Amino acid sequence: MSLNNAPKGEALAAALNVADAQFDSSLERLFALLRIPSISTDPAYDGDVKRAAAHVHDELESLGFNVTTHATPGHPMIVATWDKAAADGPRALFYGHYDVQPVDPLDLWDRDPFDPVVEARADGSKKIIARGAADDKGQIMTFIEACRACIEATGTLPISVTVLFEGEEESGSPSLPGFLDAHAADLTADVALVCDTNMWDHETPAITTRLRGLFGTEVVIKAADKDLHSGLFGGAARNPAHVLAQIIADLHDENGAVTLPGFYDGVAEVPDEVMAMWDTLNFSADDFLGAVGLSVPAGETGRTALEQMWSRPTLEVNGMTAGYTGQGFKTVLPAQASAKISCRLVKGQDPDAIRKSFEAFVKERLPADCTAEFHPHGSGPGIELDISGPAFGAAKQALTDEWPRPAAFTGVGGSIPIVGAFQDRLGLDSVLVGFGLADDQIHSPNEKYELESYRKGIRSWIRIMHAMSGVSPVAV
Amino acid sequence: MSLNNAPKGEALAAALNVADAQFDSSLERLFALLRIPSISTDPAYDGDVKRAAAHVHDELESLGFNVTTHATPGHPMIVATWDKAAADGPRALFYGHYDVQPVDPLDLWDRDPFDPVVEARADGSKKIIARGAADDKGQIMTFIEACRACIEATGTLPISVTVLFEGEEESGSPSLPGFLDAHAADLTADVALVCDTNMWDHETPAITTRLRGLFGTEVVIKAADKDLHSGLFGGAARNPAHVLAQIIADLHDENGAVTLPGFYDGVAEVPDEVMAMWDTLNFSADDFLGAVGLSVPAGETGRTALEQMWSRPTLEVNGMTAGYTGQGFKTVLPAQASAKISCRLVKGQDPDAIRKSFEAFVKERLPADCTAEFHPHGSGPGIELDISGPAFGAAKQALTDEWPRPAAFTGVGGSIPIVGAFQDRLGLDSVLVGFGLADDQIHSPNEKYELESYRKGIRSWIRIMHAMSGVSPVAV
Repeated sequence: MSLNNAPKGEALAAALNVADAQFDSSLERLFALLRIPSISTDPAYDGDVKRAAAHVHDELESLGFNVTTHATPGHPMIVATWDKAAADGPRALFYGHYDVQPVDPLDLWDRDPFDPVVEARADGSKKIIARGAADDKGQIMTFIEACRACIEATGTLPISVTVLFEGEEESGSPSLPGFLDAHAADLTADVALVCDTNMWDHETPAITTRLRGLFGTEVVIKAADKDLHSGLFGGAARNPAHVLAQIIADLHDENGAVTLPGFYDGVAEVPDEVMAMWDTLNFSADDFLGAVGLSVPAGETGRTALEQMWSRPTLEVNGMTAGYTGQGFKTVLPAQASAKISCRLVKGQDPDAIRKSFEAFVKERLPADCTAEFHPHGSGPGIELDISGPAFGAAKQALTDEWPRPAAFTGVGGSIPIVGAFQDRLGLDSVLVGFGLADDQIHSPNEKYELESYRKGIRSWIRIMHAMSGVSPVAV
Repeated sequence: MSLNNAPKGEALAAALNVADAQFDSSLERLFALLRIPSISTDPAYDGDVKRAAAHVHDELESLGFNVTTHATPGHPMIVATWDKAAADGPRALFYGHYDVQPVDPLDLWDRDPFDPVVEARADGSKKIIARGAADDKGQIMTFIEACRACIEATGTLPISVTVLFEGEEESGSPSLPGFLDAHAADLTADVALVCDTNMWDHETPAITTRLRGLFGTEVVIKAADKDLHSGLFGGAARNPAHVLAQIIADLHDENGAVTLPGFYDGVAEVPDEVMAMWDTLNFSADDFLGAVGLSVPAGETGRTALEQMWSRPTLEVNGMTAGYTGQGFKTVLPAQASAKISCRLVKGQDPDAIRKSFEAFVKERLPADCTAEFHPHGSGPGIELDISGPAFGAAKQALTDEWPRPAAFTGVGGSIPIVGAFQDRLGLDSVLVGFGLADDQIHSPNEKYELESYRKGIRSWIRIMHAMSGVSPVAV
């Protein structure tokens, strides 16, 4: 009873029905993947990482995908294509990762991290507990199971799909950039779908459209050629800790704005309609900051906390050290003082111009007998995806159809390197959709994924693929 | 042929002659003491420390001193008295220590640290090489051998003397304060002589009359209850490293002066005649700072480097730390930032008032969500000895008679705790005379003491004791 040539609405309904009907077996298949301890950073688990790669390879092949497992200097990369789409819609490149974080400290887990279980909570919710449940095995399985439901219901997918699964995401994706360059032709698509992010809350799905970039550097201020006795030299010798403190103090004005010349060049204000959308999110700065013991948004005055985190660039000291920092006291004048400083950047800022401005700012403030060294740590620009593109609109509507509350376009204050890599190396914008929640404890003991995230996540991808099938490839 | 009742000039000349005549055996006696590895901080050497105590006990007893070795919770304290002075002069309490620093790293020594030798250098100078040669065995032996020469020449000493030798100086003198309190009656004197300091240069003897005190504290600024992800929270969360940097920057003005309210209360200007004396020292800030890679006195503008180090108080960061300080980068917002800060104080400043002012200064600058903790490290006031006292004048003249250039009243930027302890617990001012040189490598490999320091040091004490014998006890 193929619905291959059925009208679109029927095909969607049929696929959703199949997904619901086989949800228990979808869960079993997720559990099978969760049982493989594919910890990519620990060589002791190399065999398990290979086993997880083979497992997802076989899953995709059994669905009818054309699958290739590519060896890399690290862990295998899996590319699977489905070229028999029902419609002449766009091709989507779906990205996720099958590796997981280490589980230490193991004694803080309530159970074996690789023996998944569904637990019911007092509030009626059910959680899938396991390492990788949310990051990222649960998320990639929402897509695989969505494909399964579509194929079982209609014999094919609503759009052409290329799947790219890597096994090194938790190790910094060392093989990915080279792989994208070498296989760009195999990865041609109209839009990327990345499933490694969160919902806004358990009722509100989200598409992440703003990601901040990064510029990081370590500055080392040196004065005397060794630590000096503060009795013997104190008063006459330059103290580089004071010099560094003055520079750090100078980097912000009394309104919390960064004083580096040119820092805000190219930074655009958030459009009114986006601000209006953020207002509907009912974000509580009190709750967000209260959870970590804070109460007052501390950044630029006159900005909401969401602006401060999503649309405004920052400059922060991540670490600093000088002189004696052990137990007790040592009355030395430090020979050097250093700080690790990074900027979160937004679209329009040029990381290299900011690096130059920072270095000039420091050098201008060096008194006699001081030198400065800089050790840049890597950088990438901020990203703001064009939400007016039809793929974004289609995904937003599809998510809104599935969940209790309308989907939101949100930001994240950090970076998701794959998004920049897809832009730079494949020329692809990413639609970032994920069903994680802020309390999923990813990277921590007792990681969980809401059973509802898994169920409605599968249904969401069915809806998104169907919605995108009506999008012209040119318009994406 | 006793000169017990000879005129003073003859007694002095006779003692100097004896000192010169027996200098080779004086050196042998110093070597015997240097061969005992009396490292007080290392329990493995406890037996050797005891042996060194017994050795100096026996030396003093053989000269005719009335000697008592007192057990302490740590190493023995030796008290020896000579009550048969030739004149009704004052009683001097002579202080030194028979323990030494550890010798690590041993491979940086050119020879066994406890196998003393005299080495001739290309410039014609001769150096006694051994651990403790300068700090402090060579120095205490100048006094013992001076006493020996006086006693052999005249049968007695020019003044009454109490000797106090401790064996814990290199371990922080834990037993000393309690011992001074318990034995104050046995230690009654008119003036203290402390032999643990340096000459100004190899031709210019020095009496140290200014010592800076210390106030130290660690300040810890806390904000969030844990380190935060700088992407997720950056911009909205308070960064305590910035708060600390601003506070440190605020602690000095653009002229290098400390901005703590009341900091300079009680600080006197150096009298013109003392400034004039310092000018004759031909101190070269270029040489002093150049030796450690610096060129410009960095403290208060309008002050000479000697003022900055001897007569002006300081406030310096000795250490600071926040966030991630290891290799590479970690983009955290630190939960806390801390600094170890100490002030070198001069006479007139109240350490407790400065502690209160510092704590208020920090608290006034704390933004919302920040707290400050303070961990004071101990404190002591600055000391300025009254150089108008006759004992100072007598010692200065005696030293001037012995050495190529006139003796100088100098300062040291650091503290010598025994001076404060003698003031507070025994009511005694200390005349600080020593024959070390800045390049003696005390506490370091290849410690040395100039042979000339030893020879003229012995002669200097003979002259000082004779000069002081003319000083009225009341006037001291």
